[in-house]
Amino acid sequence: MKREKCDLVIKGAKVFNVFTGEIEEGEIAVKNGKIVGIGSGYDAQEVYNANGAYALPSFIDAHIHVESSMLSPEEFALLSVKHGTGVIIADPHEIVNVCGIAGAEYMKEAFSHILYRGVNPLEVCLQLPSCVPASPFETSGAVLNGKETEQEIGRDLFYGLGEFMNYPAVVGADEEALSKIEAALSQGKIVDGHAPALSGDALNSYAAAGIKTDHECVNAEDCREKLKRGLYVQLRNGSSAHNLEENAKAMTAYNFRRSILCSDDRNAYDLKNHGEIDDALKRLVRMGIPAPWAIACTTLNTAECYGLKDKGALAPSYDADIALVEDLKDFRVLGVFKRGVLVAEGDKTLFHAERYSSKEVKSTVKIKEVTADDFRLDLSGKVRVMRVKPNGIMTEEEVLNVSSQKGDVLLPKGVCKLAVIERHFASGNMGKCLLSGYGLKGGALGISVSHDSHNLVVVGDDNTAMARVAALLKEAGGGMAVVNGKFERAFALDIAGLMSSKPYEEVILETEEITAHARRMGIKEGIEPFMSLVFLSLAVIPKLRLTDKGLVDVDKFEITTSQIKE
Amino acid sequence: MKREKCDLVIKGAKVFNVFTGEIEEGEIAVKNGKIVGIGSGYDAQEVYNANGAYALPSFIDAHIHVESSMLSPEEFALLSVKHGTGVIIADPHEIVNVCGIAGAEYMKEAFSHILYRGVNPLEVCLQLPSCVPASPFETSGAVLNGKETEQEIGRDLFYGLGEFMNYPAVVGADEEALSKIEAALSQGKIVDGHAPALSGDALNSYAAAGIKTDHECVNAEDCREKLKRGLYVQLRNGSSAHNLEENAKAMTAYNFRRSILCSDDRNAYDLKNHGEIDDALKRLVRMGIPAPWAIACTTLNTAECYGLKDKGALAPSYDADIALVEDLKDFRVLGVFKRGVLVAEGDKTLFHAERYSSKEVKSTVKIKEVTADDFRLDLSGKVRVMRVKPNGIMTEEEVLNVSSQKGDVLLPKGVCKLAVIERHFASGNMGKCLLSGYGLKGGALGISVSHDSHNLVVVGDDNTAMARVAALLKEAGGGMAVVNGKFERAFALDIAGLMSSKPYEEVILETEEITAHARRMGIKEGIEPFMSLVFLSLAVIPKLRLTDKGLVDVDKFEITTSQIKE
Repeated sequence: MKREKCDLVIKGAKVFNVFTGEIEEGEIAVKNGKIVGIGSGYDAQEVYNANGAYALPSFIDAHIHVESSMLSPEEFALLSVKHGTGVIIADPHEIVNVCGIAGAEYMKEAFSHILYRGVNPLEVCLQLPSCVPASPFETSGAVLNGKETEQEIGRDLFYGLGEFMNYPAVVGADEEALSKIEAALSQGKIVDGHAPALSGDALNSYAAAGIKTDHECVNAEDCREKLKRGLYVQLRNGSSAHNLEENAKAMTAYNFRRSILCSDDRNAYDLKNHGEIDDALKRLVRMGIPAPWAIACTTLNTAECYGLKDKGALAPSYDADIALVEDLKDFRVLGVFKRGVLVAEGDKTLFHAERYSSKEVKSTVKIKEVTADDFRLDLSGKVRVMRVKPNGIMTEEEVLNVSSQKGDVLLPKGVCKLAVIERHFASGNMGKCLLSGYGLKGGALGISVSHDSHNLVVVGDDNTAMARVAALLKEAGGGMAVVNGKFERAFALDIAGLMSSKPYEEVILETEEITAHARRMGIKEGIEPFMSLVFLSLAVIPKLRLTDKGLVDVDKFEITTSQIKE
Repeated sequence: MKREKCDLVIKGAKVFNVFTGEIEEGEIAVKNGKIVGIGSGYDAQEVYNANGAYALPSFIDAHIHVESSMLSPEEFALLSVKHGTGVIIADPHEIVNVCGIAGAEYMKEAFSHILYRGVNPLEVCLQLPSCVPASPFETSGAVLNGKETEQEIGRDLFYGLGEFMNYPAVVGADEEALSKIEAALSQGKIVDGHAPALSGDALNSYAAAGIKTDHECVNAEDCREKLKRGLYVQLRNGSSAHNLEENAKAMTAYNFRRSILCSDDRNAYDLKNHGEIDDALKRLVRMGIPAPWAIACTTLNTAECYGLKDKGALAPSYDADIALVEDLKDFRVLGVFKRGVLVAEGDKTLFHAERYSSKEVKSTVKIKEVTADDFRLDLSGKVRVMRVKPNGIMTEEEVLNVSSQKGDVLLPKGVCKLAVIERHFASGNMGKCLLSGYGLKGGALGISVSHDSHNLVVVGDDNTAMARVAALLKEAGGGMAVVNGKFERAFALDIAGLMSSKPYEEVILETEEITAHARRMGIKEGIEPFMSLVFLSLAVIPKLRLTDKGLVDVDKFEITTSQIKE
């Protein structure tokens, strides 16, 4: 009512109204972090001239694993905020698989510590990971059973229950799985889904359990069925998932309210150079989705899905979380306000991402000392070989005839060794097998990121080099390592073996460099030297996977052996 | 997954999918009151053949004062359910103004007592009345101040805070008003609005307070502005509010998600003969609103607005609340399921509305004995006269010259007396004035419903008849009464003086009869003998109103006098 001065008034903006899809020319008046009016003639302590930019509610990323950026929460926030994101629904699935609940607590604290003029530039709703570990065939750093889930989900720490990846358990009405979901729902908390290729009766069952979202759709038909069954479809714009446009074809004027945008897994390079949700908006509009639909998909729709009552719209009583963008085509972000505080402008973030440090997530790589001999693999005759293929994460089973010398296999041409070393409890567990299609020659490389238990994955054709890679990874507290003859290089992912505490520019650069070093060992075109390794332990994707417990035949859902008994 | 038999399967229905706006041919499978799948091939204990009817989520009436039907909750439920309503958001504003919180408790209990095969055919979300009393110029049966509101809103009894009619207090930032709203919001409860003609800065302020709905829009322009400011627009299909179609013109493919349907005030005759939300749907479709939009406005949209997570859609995990309708044009209801139980079929309700009785809401009419002399009105010279007009509820101030005889005014032609008698505490308070435009000759009539304090309103040109009307109303425990010479008739509204405990057919018939008797006294065309009286105490509608405390000049917002001092 203009009885008092506002704290802030944003003038000269084209204000996008997400309730009507219209643009209003008007001032946005802010007091105590809230929008108090859209109108004209406001008097304020601070006036910001938007110079004709479009004012949108800042973006809500509906589902993201921050760890996949390999950035610390603080560095992630710098990139995310400057691309217009105000809230992320983050599932700390990776760090919790390593550090347990302490990992989630660290994430929350780290994000909370970023304070600027009294606000948190990036607000985080943390989901309690629902599937720790993801499969029974591996050793993870923590186990969250039904009872623990019931205790944890009640905490303020957690906004909801993270993607329920173990969909066979839900569809099969496994008691522990359902008890986790029930615990969340009874606390009024949302349960996120992960329902690849679920359809028909199975999809009905999955939805009947009370799960509300899915980000695994692969095409419009898949989206349509999930929309019909009441799931919010999370249109994913990840670094490796490439079906945003295909999925968005399912959108109609009637159903767009049920689609929301997410990143899921997005690396630092993409975050810096292409952006986050702003990139998704650009892509949607480019393919012909009306801008007002696209914007709703990351503002009002997401706020409704997640019950974020004060978010997702520029209207009185809503938080003054605002992204100013140049146009509704490229969505170049010109300024970002969080609760009425300017936190990013142009290409600059205005806040300093002060680091939060926690012993709980440091020095997490605990392995028994390994020697070259530990990588011997005594195989002969017919053996199962895991075959990787360019541009994908599926593997195949290849059967080869091999011979052995002094208790170690003689590697056929184009074949190297793959080892997965348990790294949480220094148990000495190690799985080993042969790997084809990868192309490495004359050394070894490894990484401590390997979904979902994040044991060490080492690949090589030289036992000594493989042992050295393991040692380098241990020394660094996790990370990536290359050993090529005398050449050695390691890049530390010192936070839980998953994330670097360095500035994002350095993370991007160092990742590029070590990847280039790895490439020199002849790794095939179309295969990412490190990033292709991180899925080789994920024992839910066909056909063969390797964990610290051995070779897994995913189709049969059992541990198998390399040696084929005849 | 069809591992077990379902409780119920509905076959042969055209299933409306509110997420996509499409019709699916499919079976609806129900177990434990929940939809577990939409598909085919289900095996069930009970099979219901819908014979090609359309299956819709049953309707949610977003805002209704049940008391306005003059029916007991049980009789209301019979009519509401058979017209396809599954949930009502009920504001027991009237009964709470008479009986205090005990009135709300009675409503809740009465609805809860209607059980049929383990379900409540009509589910009720009760809103805590926010404005008791509505104005300072009258004596209500209860007062709910800020502190009491803070205590009460935390109870499970109340779903949210009822329409905040005292909008000037909100816009004026009155501390007590804001403390009520704040108390509701801090408990995560919704606050309903009532914002007639609010616009611009005032609307911004009202919305900024956190109020989420409005049902007082009068045209599309009004709707559009309220939609923009983030209010859900409640499209009202009441008995006396006639702007559903006018308001619905504001709907677009983009914004229809923010419109919801409500009845507000609807009498028994309309409920029985025209229906409730089914009637609103018919009217919307008739004016050209696409049926999928209209249906969303009373299902998904309303469920989202009020956070009714399990309501508003036919999809797995949702409550099996289903209305079967003949077509998507007339919406004739053929069958109604509540949590999977058939509760109405054709024109029949299958449940019996067992009465819940409460002393708290009986014998609520407490008045001092009144005699003919109490209705004497000693006026002479220039006096203010309240003038009523046909087909509206506004009044005007008319100035007349009158003379007095033996301490009582000589009524000019076309003028009668109006009296409002306090009836909660037998205080003897009585307001009196002259009334023109009404047309009554030769008797008196009165009613115990008078918004919002529900004191007795008596109109007549004969002091003896007026006293007799008051006595009849007292005897009946409230209701309607007519005295025309020797003829006397009363119809009891024995529940709080607002509702009858008789079957709805009788209520409709008796109301019609007593109204016909009243009409015989010459009441003008276009003026409802009783229903026009119920707003004459509502001291928030211009120009003159009469309460037990006297004549109120609403424009000046002060008590005035009939006698004009010269």
